[in-house]
Amino acid sequence: MPRIVDHEQRRRDIARAVWRLLERDGLRGASVRAVVAESGLSSGAIRHYFSTQDDLLRFAGRIIRDEVPDRLLGVLKEPGPDPQERACRLLEELVPLDDRRRTELLVAVALAELERTSPGQDREFIDASHAGLRVLTRLAVLVLVGRAVELTPVDPLEPGLEEAAARLHLLADGVCAQHLFYPGVLTPEDLRASLRDGVEQVGAALGVRPTD
Amino acid sequence: MPRIVDHEQRRRDIARAVWRLLERDGLRGASVRAVVAESGLSSGAIRHYFSTQDDLLRFAGRIIRDEVPDRLLGVLKEPGPDPQERACRLLEELVPLDDRRRTELLVAVALAELERTSPGQDREFIDASHAGLRVLTRLAVLVLVGRAVELTPVDPLEPGLEEAAARLHLLADGVCAQHLFYPGVLTPEDLRASLRDGVEQVGAALGVRPTD
Repeated sequence: MPRIVDHEQRRRDIARAVWRLLERDGLRGASVRAVVAESGLSSGAIRHYFSTQDDLLRFAGRIIRDEVPDRLLGVLKEPGPDPQERACRLLEELVPLDDRRRTELLVAVALAELERTSPGQDREFIDASHAGLRVLTRLAVLVLVGRAVELTPVDPLEPGLEEAAARLHLLADGVCAQHLFYPGVLTPEDLRASLRDGVEQVGAALGVRPTD
Repeated sequence: MPRIVDHEQRRRDIARAVWRLLERDGLRGASVRAVVAESGLSSGAIRHYFSTQDDLLRFAGRIIRDEVPDRLLGVLKEPGPDPQERACRLLEELVPLDDRRRTELLVAVALAELERTSPGQDREFIDASHAGLRVLTRLAVLVLVGRAVELTPVDPLEPGLEEAAARLHLLADGVCAQHLFYPGVLTPEDLRASLRDGVEQVGAALGVRPTD
């Protein structure tokens, strides 16, 4: 009788092993060999999904793209205290405030570096990354101005709101950058404060009054 | 008779070779061996300054720190058209709008990565990088509000202005990040437009009216 492999379950097992390694040992510690050891699966089973460090990064990139939307959905479902607070919480899912989010950022940056040095190979990931961030910041703008939130505002909002979404996008990327550019200089609290200050500025430009 | 070596001249020759390589071939192309070939100097002369790829990056980092202030001084000396335009030009010296500035950014990011993975070795560069950006954005704020510009405002400005400097700092880093995170998505014109929009926002918060 042929053995039946639950590919989805196996994929999840491998994904968990990859995350544990990335969070514990960083990019340098996440080799194909380490994933084999960490997951307890056979080398052959692992190599079905990736065989090089670059492929491993791409696999990790796909996990991000699959899991982050669920987290955001969770935040959107929370009966948040006020619009500005909810918008901040959405954006905070994307900035490096804990190990998980720091790892997500490092994987995204590593994939951007792959695409920069070998154009074309990771084009889809990069384009989806930029588009995904913009969808998220559109959601944050809709939350800020108290509009009904559709889950995937993939089309640009009307001009004033789209401009606000672009500003929040630049803000979130700036906060990520300051963590990357100045290791050890800024605490998660510093990053969170910058994000909240920026959201307040964008909200004020949209005529949203902060709740005290 | 002993040979007299003009160390400063040699250092400049090597620096030029390193820059040519970095601009032409990127970080991966800038090996110690490539610098020997590019500079026409002996291997021994090169190895007086650096012997590994990491040391080469540190040498390139020192060149940035030596040369960027001169460029900024040049911008400050220009009789700029209006304060907002001059502030934008200052910040534009730091964002990846051409090969030289893209290379500077890559070197800074590579040194940050070295410090992140081996804490303590490049601490001084990272701290100077954060402090240097803040001095620059303080200059931009002083220019924006029409104040006399001292060349090294190393101490925080008064609260409202220091907050504006922090916002411009985050803005400049965000623009750099969007170039790094989304290779091929944003043009130099996009980056410049984001920077100018952000400067206008900060200026407006300071009560500076844009000149039409």
